[in-house]
Amino acid sequence: MQKYQLRTRNRVEFQDITASVADAIRSQQVDSGLCVVYCPHTTAAITINENADPDVPRDINAFMNSTIPHRGDYRHAEGNSDSHIKAAYVGPSQTLIIHAGRPLLGRWQGVFFCEFDGPRDRTFYVKVMKDPHE
Amino acid sequence: MQKYQLRTRNRVEFQDITASVADAIRSQQVDSGLCVVYCPHTTAAITINENADPDVPRDINAFMNSTIPHRGDYRHAEGNSDSHIKAAYVGPSQTLIIHAGRPLLGRWQGVFFCEFDGPRDRTFYVKVMKDPHE
Amino acid sequence: MQKYQLRTRNRVEFQDITASVADAIRSQQVDSGLCVVYCPHTTAAITINENADPDVPRDINAFMNSTIPHRGDYRHAEGNSDSHIKAAYVGPSQTLIIHAGRPLLGRWQGVFFCEFDGPRDRTFYVKVMKDPHE
Repeated sequence: MQKYQLRTRNRVEFQDITASVADAIRSQQVDSGLCVVYCPHTTAAITINENADPDVPRDINAFMNSTIPHRGDYRHAEGNSDSHIKAAYVGPSQTLIIHAGRPLLGRWQGVFFCEFDGPRDRTFYVKVMKDPHE
Repeated sequence: MQKYQLRTRNRVEFQDITASVADAIRSQQVDSGLCVVYCPHTTAAITINENADPDVPRDINAFMNSTIPHRGDYRHAEGNSDSHIKAAYVGPSQTLIIHAGRPLLGRWQGVFFCEFDGPRDRTFYVKVMKDPHE
Repeated sequence: MQKYQLRTRNRVEFQDITASVADAIRSQQVDSGLCVVYCPHTTAAITINENADPDVPRDINAFMNSTIPHRGDYRHAEGNSDSHIKAAYVGPSQTLIIHAGRPLLGRWQGVFFCEFDGPRDRTFYVKVMKDPHE
């Protein structure tokens, strides 16, 4: 299992972590298997989406900000219930197929760390599981 | 694979099932691998979020109830389309990394069974897969 | 790993792919393990929900269409930001438990390919991982 750290700069932002995921797979020398990218935080998430046009993550976050407001009828005293709701919708992990030594991603897909309550120092894990049939 | 049963008490509620997940891993004596927590129902889900302050699941459910209303412009005759929509957003399973014989969870993370159409008797499964490199 | 192709007929629709998933598992002759159903597109997704009453996917899509509008305050020039947002909420993959040679699904559950920007020719992958303890 590999552990990665990053620093976010804004309250809400997506950071492209595709290179780290590919690196974790390469370093384990696994040709075929599964790869789990896991976020251990409750106000952040992992997603897979288009990483060609930065307006895509921008639009996703603008939509989420407008429909899951920061200030609302919440009770959680830390004032970040919106971040927990966003994390529940997007989810704490993504599972990728490893094929030919690389993460099987579509042409436009990248893996993103989703910050919903930054800026903060954050961590994510990549677990590579070799196919026992390999 | 382990099968667990629980009873929910309300139409909508989250039940913390972290102890069952940890128990399933321990009973399989797997040190390193993956663990899938799976919900076989279409009006319930599995999520991972903060289990320290009960206001967090309360706020998530209050938000979902207000934005995904029980009564709406739905056609499904059972009257629980909201529950199916919530299940689609949160998802039927979570995949955890097993590290050092335990589920790799962040400090504030717990695993929840999400009831969206209770009260009912419910089931979930935990599948533990040992890393063949272990 | 198996690759499957399908053609969608509408901008938004769910296609039941449960038979393909079961077929992929059967063809690998795996009795116990995990199965990942993966969508390589950024405007489509994979979900698990009720496949008995077609009003369930109909209601899920009607709800998503009304709350995640096609035309909105988006910047992404392709005009399909709603599709990317829906894909982020539903997610690009589902992980299933394989038990007794079949996908472990609840009585009412089916696996769906979710088209959010069709009609198009689409692809999905099914990766079967045998439990090394089997």
